[in-house]
Amino acid sequence: MPIKSEVAQLLLHCPDKPGILAEVTDFITVNKGNIVYLDQYVDHAENVFFMRIAWELDGFLIPKEKIEDYFQTLYGRKYQMIFRLYFSDVKPRMAVFVSRMSHCLYDMLARYTAGEWNVEIPLIVSNHPDLEHVARRFDIPFYLFPITKQNKERQEAEEMRLLAENRINFIVLARYMQIVSEKMIEAYPNRIINIHHSFLPAFVGARPYHAAYERGVKIIGATSHYVTTELDAGPIIEQEIVRITHKDTIEDLVNKGKDLEKIVLSRAVQKHIERKVLVYKNKTVIFN
Amino acid sequence: MPIKSEVAQLLLHCPDKPGILAEVTDFITVNKGNIVYLDQYVDHAENVFFMRIAWELDGFLIPKEKIEDYFQTLYGRKYQMIFRLYFSDVKPRMAVFVSRMSHCLYDMLARYTAGEWNVEIPLIVSNHPDLEHVARRFDIPFYLFPITKQNKERQEAEEMRLLAENRINFIVLARYMQIVSEKMIEAYPNRIINIHHSFLPAFVGARPYHAAYERGVKIIGATSHYVTTELDAGPIIEQEIVRITHKDTIEDLVNKGKDLEKIVLSRAVQKHIERKVLVYKNKTVIFN
Amino acid sequence: MPIKSEVAQLLLHCPDKPGILAEVTDFITVNKGNIVYLDQYVDHAENVFFMRIAWELDGFLIPKEKIEDYFQTLYGRKYQMIFRLYFSDVKPRMAVFVSRMSHCLYDMLARYTAGEWNVEIPLIVSNHPDLEHVARRFDIPFYLFPITKQNKERQEAEEMRLLAENRINFIVLARYMQIVSEKMIEAYPNRIINIHHSFLPAFVGARPYHAAYERGVKIIGATSHYVTTELDAGPIIEQEIVRITHKDTIEDLVNKGKDLEKIVLSRAVQKHIERKVLVYKNKTVIFN
Amino acid sequence: MPIKSEVAQLLLHCPDKPGILAEVTDFITVNKGNIVYLDQYVDHAENVFFMRIAWELDGFLIPKEKIEDYFQTLYGRKYQMIFRLYFSDVKPRMAVFVSRMSHCLYDMLARYTAGEWNVEIPLIVSNHPDLEHVARRFDIPFYLFPITKQNKERQEAEEMRLLAENRINFIVLARYMQIVSEKMIEAYPNRIINIHHSFLPAFVGARPYHAAYERGVKIIGATSHYVTTELDAGPIIEQEIVRITHKDTIEDLVNKGKDLEKIVLSRAVQKHIERKVLVYKNKTVIFN
Repeated sequence: MPIKSEVAQLLLHCPDKPGILAEVTDFITVNKGNIVYLDQYVDHAENVFFMRIAWELDGFLIPKEKIEDYFQTLYGRKYQMIFRLYFSDVKPRMAVFVSRMSHCLYDMLARYTAGEWNVEIPLIVSNHPDLEHVARRFDIPFYLFPITKQNKERQEAEEMRLLAENRINFIVLARYMQIVSEKMIEAYPNRIINIHHSFLPAFVGARPYHAAYERGVKIIGATSHYVTTELDAGPIIEQEIVRITHKDTIEDLVNKGKDLEKIVLSRAVQKHIERKVLVYKNKTVIFN
Repeated sequence: MPIKSEVAQLLLHCPDKPGILAEVTDFITVNKGNIVYLDQYVDHAENVFFMRIAWELDGFLIPKEKIEDYFQTLYGRKYQMIFRLYFSDVKPRMAVFVSRMSHCLYDMLARYTAGEWNVEIPLIVSNHPDLEHVARRFDIPFYLFPITKQNKERQEAEEMRLLAENRINFIVLARYMQIVSEKMIEAYPNRIINIHHSFLPAFVGARPYHAAYERGVKIIGATSHYVTTELDAGPIIEQEIVRITHKDTIEDLVNKGKDLEKIVLSRAVQKHIERKVLVYKNKTVIFN
Repeated sequence: MPIKSEVAQLLLHCPDKPGILAEVTDFITVNKGNIVYLDQYVDHAENVFFMRIAWELDGFLIPKEKIEDYFQTLYGRKYQMIFRLYFSDVKPRMAVFVSRMSHCLYDMLARYTAGEWNVEIPLIVSNHPDLEHVARRFDIPFYLFPITKQNKERQEAEEMRLLAENRINFIVLARYMQIVSEKMIEAYPNRIINIHHSFLPAFVGARPYHAAYERGVKIIGATSHYVTTELDAGPIIEQEIVRITHKDTIEDLVNKGKDLEKIVLSRAVQKHIERKVLVYKNKTVIFN
Repeated sequence: MPIKSEVAQLLLHCPDKPGILAEVTDFITVNKGNIVYLDQYVDHAENVFFMRIAWELDGFLIPKEKIEDYFQTLYGRKYQMIFRLYFSDVKPRMAVFVSRMSHCLYDMLARYTAGEWNVEIPLIVSNHPDLEHVARRFDIPFYLFPITKQNKERQEAEEMRLLAENRINFIVLARYMQIVSEKMIEAYPNRIINIHHSFLPAFVGARPYHAAYERGVKIIGATSHYVTTELDAGPIIEQEIVRITHKDTIEDLVNKGKDLEKIVLSRAVQKHIERKVLVYKNKTVIFN
């Protein structure tokens, strides 16, 4: 389905009631919007209706800048609907935070450079100089903010100023070995994506491969999640695993884990870029 | 979501046009049907709209026996819609065909006996006497039809008479080591489910584990599909794989494969029983 | 490799030193033992050498009943070697403990009845009467020991008497919803196999599917392990996972989990029966 | 296990006879070689013994350059042993052939640049100019050899001259969309590694994702194998799969497949670099 026109993408949720789906799709159709995507789901336990719907703006009778108003007026109160509207030609702007390990960064930059992702990456932030050469290879500005206990608050303030200046929409922690402060988390709610190198909630915290090795598990994993103020406890976006045996040393786990981490993080980032993730009560709804 | 009432289940497909989804869901809602399930999908390459929708009949304004008429009248011609209607309190009737290997049969009978499947299994058919004891353990009539080149046509005619007498809706070939004739296939179109012990289309035909061993693959699989007149080429319902190494002998492959086969076949049968499989052009749409 | 003769199976571990492997294999070869299996592994972190070796007894110069003595004399002190010797024609005797869920029990009995496992199952123990019909279908004695806080100690004593009378070598807890007492665990060290319905160490304890649902994980798992006095913390034998989505209800998790549980438990039991599991410091070495 | 000294790596196979393992390990031990790795396997169907053994050269009594002679003299004839000897401080030299898709190339160069692989990559060859920028980012010489029917023989001769000049040991075809000629294959027997974007032997040849889509499979795969003169039929080194659904378009398959391809190819290349692959009769033995 080659879509030529610009597309509006609507993510919404509200208490489930009869007729919502029909009403929303009918509204778009009647206004000459060609629906190119629809995925919906009802959480019967919570009685919540979730939907992602996308339609071509070409020929749509309601002006682009009025769509949000219309939805708010028509459905906001009536259905207590909470929604977000995106447009396909607005590229989200993403910052990458790294420390010393390059595998996740390379994986994302390779996709970005190959044009696979509809995103802008205006900058890379790090607390160590080690990966500056990677940023340079891909011609992306690299900002070094060494963090110590003493300077952490000040440095984070600087980082946030930089992010704001660059109109950053979301942050990816690509094995960034620092705990991000509450202030930053609150500034980017459900918009900081982390990769944790274990199958959460197993092995929360530091050195999960060591812990996995100690416990003698037969499978290791990686988890990508939105960062919340509780460590490693935010909404999970994606997980993947790989089988290990007693023959694998900690070093083997680290190496096998790297492949997991980069694939899991990139999958999560891609879903986020495509606006296919909706967070509800510390869990994610991932649309197809 | 504990559903107390009887539920109508509708599977449909038709050329994709604006408004179908809204119209169908609206029709059910307006007639006081409480929608408990909806999954839809548009194949943009083929321009076909697929939907599975289910709603409670309790309070639904259209009498159960008139629903099909209504849909046919309202949408049959207008949308060139092809649909099938099922009711949750009508249990499909399933025949199992086996030969000598018991693992798939046991797996299905364990689920059946535990009440996991909304199905009736009135009979088991075999071309060998070996598994009669299994049928007896589960108190299910066992019919022996030894097949030779000479008697095949006659025996199959007998089998078909038996199936008809027992109002069998669909057949499961649980490692039934006989090729079913065209006549029987045509009598049960997309209603004979087979398990093939390879990752189709690799290793079509006999002795796939031997072929996999010879080829030196690192992964083996199993495939459940509807039987068509072309051998091992029918619409695939489910597949699964397991990793092997050079250390695995053919016997190891057979043993690892057994676990795959039974799980894959049971998953496919379950999807079929739940009326979540729709066949279109030799491929399946599997609803959640 | 069809092995006609009886086979001796030796599992051993000791501090790693040069020459052990050569010395042991040489000893068997010189005494006309035809080695049919050898797998070894050195844990360089712990500096421990592990080996499983099997050879045909037909023609072996040392009498079967003297082999253990020889090994003890030759290598016991010299290498501080700890070993266990088994013979292929001695079938281990296994007791199954169940409560109300039948899927694991059926899976094991199907394998047992089909002759896939070199084991005897003289009895099934339960704290509920629900699965007596399953035992009867497979002609295996079923013993009911309802457990209450008041009678637990007495009932376990009875169970242990029954196990002793039946010369039980190891116990399989097939979704047995009771915590086994320390006394029984100590009587069967690394010989009680449990299936836990989560990907341990995630979701230790009761109701792991509910916990997984709450946490919003994208993958669920099952873990088979030896029972130790610390709950769900014993040496892991096998784990497996299956992918889920936000659409899966707790009931879906339970159902998908059942297939995991039975496959994982049966794989673990099979490894144990084949004497391919060696426990060292709360971890397992699983030979091929 | 931090190994400080240089290590000798020996891969061998021969008809299985009693005593080989003991004799070889004993020989190394007696000559003061500290064995740091040993993995062996007997193919009982073919009666062939396979082994990979590695030992520290520091303190080994036989001079490095004489080891091969010793083994040939002692075991070559006696056991009809075929072996290869490598040294850990000799880095293999690898050429990468690409066309237009960058994902496999980026994945390998990221590992290479991060120092994960003990290899030299002196050059990249391509039949298209598209990926020259990638080579430049990583400071690796890029050679363009556009191929037409008319110039193919001449261009390949040039390529082979270039490879020889650069003392290339093995070639990796990283989505190189050209069939390599017999001449080149014969010059690098079991030393050209290809990635095929299907689960071989399913979907041999061109456009496997299209074929997979047409067939309606539920799982797609990727296969890394040594190139032989028969297309896509060489010894398989590694395979991996990912689950798909009816909702995935061909474009989705291509995108999901890319992640498979790069991981599978990199795993295969790593095993080759580590000298852990032994080819026997069109199949591979992969040591741990």
